[in-house]
Amino acid sequence: MKRAVVLLSGGLDSAVALYLAKSQGFEVHALSFDYGQRHNRELQGAKAIAGKAGVAAHKVVSLKLDQWGGSSLTDKSMDVENGDVTRQDIPVTYVPARNMVFLSVAASYAEAIEARDIFIGVSQVDYSGYVDCRQEFIDAMETAVNMGTVMGAGQNRPIRIQAPFVHKTKAEEIQLGAKLGVPFELTWSCYRGGEKPCGTCDSCLLRAKAFDEAGIEDKALSV
Amino acid sequence: MKRAVVLLSGGLDSAVALYLAKSQGFEVHALSFDYGQRHNRELQGAKAIAGKAGVAAHKVVSLKLDQWGGSSLTDKSMDVENGDVTRQDIPVTYVPARNMVFLSVAASYAEAIEARDIFIGVSQVDYSGYVDCRQEFIDAMETAVNMGTVMGAGQNRPIRIQAPFVHKTKAEEIQLGAKLGVPFELTWSCYRGGEKPCGTCDSCLLRAKAFDEAGIEDKALSV
Repeated sequence: MKRAVVLLSGGLDSAVALYLAKSQGFEVHALSFDYGQRHNRELQGAKAIAGKAGVAAHKVVSLKLDQWGGSSLTDKSMDVENGDVTRQDIPVTYVPARNMVFLSVAASYAEAIEARDIFIGVSQVDYSGYVDCRQEFIDAMETAVNMGTVMGAGQNRPIRIQAPFVHKTKAEEIQLGAKLGVPFELTWSCYRGGEKPCGTCDSCLLRAKAFDEAGIEDKALSV
Repeated sequence: MKRAVVLLSGGLDSAVALYLAKSQGFEVHALSFDYGQRHNRELQGAKAIAGKAGVAAHKVVSLKLDQWGGSSLTDKSMDVENGDVTRQDIPVTYVPARNMVFLSVAASYAEAIEARDIFIGVSQVDYSGYVDCRQEFIDAMETAVNMGTVMGAGQNRPIRIQAPFVHKTKAEEIQLGAKLGVPFELTWSCYRGGEKPCGTCDSCLLRAKAFDEAGIEDKALSV
């Protein structure tokens, strides 16, 4: 059975990516990170989603990117700003090189288990100023992965980085997710990571807007 | 003062890279990894070298690549084979995507502290079959780093990955290191990671051959 490593944050995008990989016949090996994020509450979501989807494996890697801060998501002395979905600049929630780190570790895992595909649920449409959610970055990483692994560089078995939502809106993702039976009620989006979603951070606002546009109800969180 | 992140394994190559960065006027921020390597003995070397060189900071990141094995360096149920410096295939000590992971985390650190340079002591001359020690890989990673960070993609402040030894032999590195005052006696190379170097693994053989070619004595380990 063909294998895929799926980056699973516990948020909405990665849950849809996981169900999409599964629907395409992949044996799913989910990979999550405890990177010092203030909303590590999302990892409860990741575990619940992985369990519900019946993945072949789920690894949670601890990697303390909060050792150097640089982001309100990992530096607890900074505030998470209230959201503004029209803002164009880089939000303080940007974590330096986060997707690069995640994809690199995913490449290591993929090569160890001989998976030829890595799924990541980024979108450059609703990307909220994160440069590491763009197609150009995904393409550059795929090249690097295949230069820096034996599978890609020595054995002509290149690894693909699949970013199926890179040109989709979050509303389109949600519509796809609904068809695939994604348990949205297990996904966590809020950056503030309290007991319940705050409803005012960037991530909460984008989620609400997207469910609204998709015409689908966002059921109450049950994780 | 211009800052650089220097990948410091505690081995010989990275120690010379660190002293080279220092000699070029960089404020050095050293970065080491506890990745489940059987020779984590090298981290004692890293600490000693960082201390001796008087770096501005030294971070040791824990990141358990041994969660999925795939290498005799991280999977303790596998043996480290005896060395054969003429071998052309991929050695079992290859750790999947290791340098990609290290460089990605270095990019995160670099962006957080606004360092424009990352040093890595790889060489494709004596590279022992590791595809992630080649110039092509370094170039691909530099492109990815600058697509996936705000400094590179949004602010036109690209980050350089400096691999000063990529076309040098280990003997040439040692000669340079001797001029720069590198404390070779603090560096650890042996893959087996016992109390003393085994003298028979790939890494021990390459080190002995290189000191011999350089015409420099490899003093007894003192770390």
